[in-house]
Amino acid sequence: MMRNEVHAIQDDYPEDFAWCFGCGRLNEEGHHFRTAWNGNHTETIYDPNEKHTAIPGFVYGGLIASLIDCHGTGSASLALHRKNGFEPGSGEAPPRFVTGSLHVDFLKPTPQNVTLKAVGTIEEIHPKKWKVTTEVFAGDTLCAKGEVVAVVMPATFALQK
Amino acid sequence: MMRNEVHAIQDDYPEDFAWCFGCGRLNEEGHHFRTAWNGNHTETIYDPNEKHTAIPGFVYGGLIASLIDCHGTGSASLALHRKNGFEPGSGEAPPRFVTGSLHVDFLKPTPQNVTLKAVGTIEEIHPKKWKVTTEVFAGDTLCAKGEVVAVVMPATFALQK
Repeated sequence: MMRNEVHAIQDDYPEDFAWCFGCGRLNEEGHHFRTAWNGNHTETIYDPNEKHTAIPGFVYGGLIASLIDCHGTGSASLALHRKNGFEPGSGEAPPRFVTGSLHVDFLKPTPQNVTLKAVGTIEEIHPKKWKVTTEVFAGDTLCAKGEVVAVVMPATFALQK
Repeated sequence: MMRNEVHAIQDDYPEDFAWCFGCGRLNEEGHHFRTAWNGNHTETIYDPNEKHTAIPGFVYGGLIASLIDCHGTGSASLALHRKNGFEPGSGEAPPRFVTGSLHVDFLKPTPQNVTLKAVGTIEEIHPKKWKVTTEVFAGDTLCAKGEVVAVVMPATFALQK
């Protein structure tokens, strides 16, 4: 799990938006993905649970996809927050994104019992749309590449709650 | 959950390959996705758990991605099994696939407390590579579209166990 001293964007999500099974700090049973800046890249570090198996010894693809998904929306939030002049921990609520599309190329089997690191590169493609390209490493091995198009959460989400 | 009287391809996976968190019948904590023929299409029916939330009221994207992923590999297995002259329940072990790539377009927020149905269309693009296009419905609403390129599981997977 990401070192606790790093301030992740998910630490600052408003409570109403902190229940995501992937990255919500209030979802007790979820993954608690935490995404933070590391220079101009973003990082999410995660230790998969033993049960998240594909075949014994390897991590199942759904976990990798979930990691890339939440890492993508978190990275977009970090980037727009920074564009607005804020950093995690500044006290301002960060913007919340939803996933428009998710693409994952599985390059190598992802071994279990190895810490995963998702590294994101972010590009603004529209004021409300950001593209996050992610590489997922198990140790030094690049296991998957992903791309998320993240979209600023429409107001209808909150209204339909 | 899919009606138990339908014979799903995952019911026939050899025990060594039945531990996937998404679709392995032996993974007690997993989703137990079950994929079967419905005419020339494939279907996986699933009731998300309350904890699999994005924001309250909606299913989180990682679950949709996992569903499309395992539905895709299961559908490819059904298709190659049929090409080889077999149907689920025939007693022959079906071929096992891994995911080469996964793409998901999230079209609408997926409501919770509604049964999800993934409907797959399968195309052989290479003797060892099958493309599965999937539509995910919540009730009558098309919430997501997905595409999986599934590849016959390389022998190295079993060797590295």
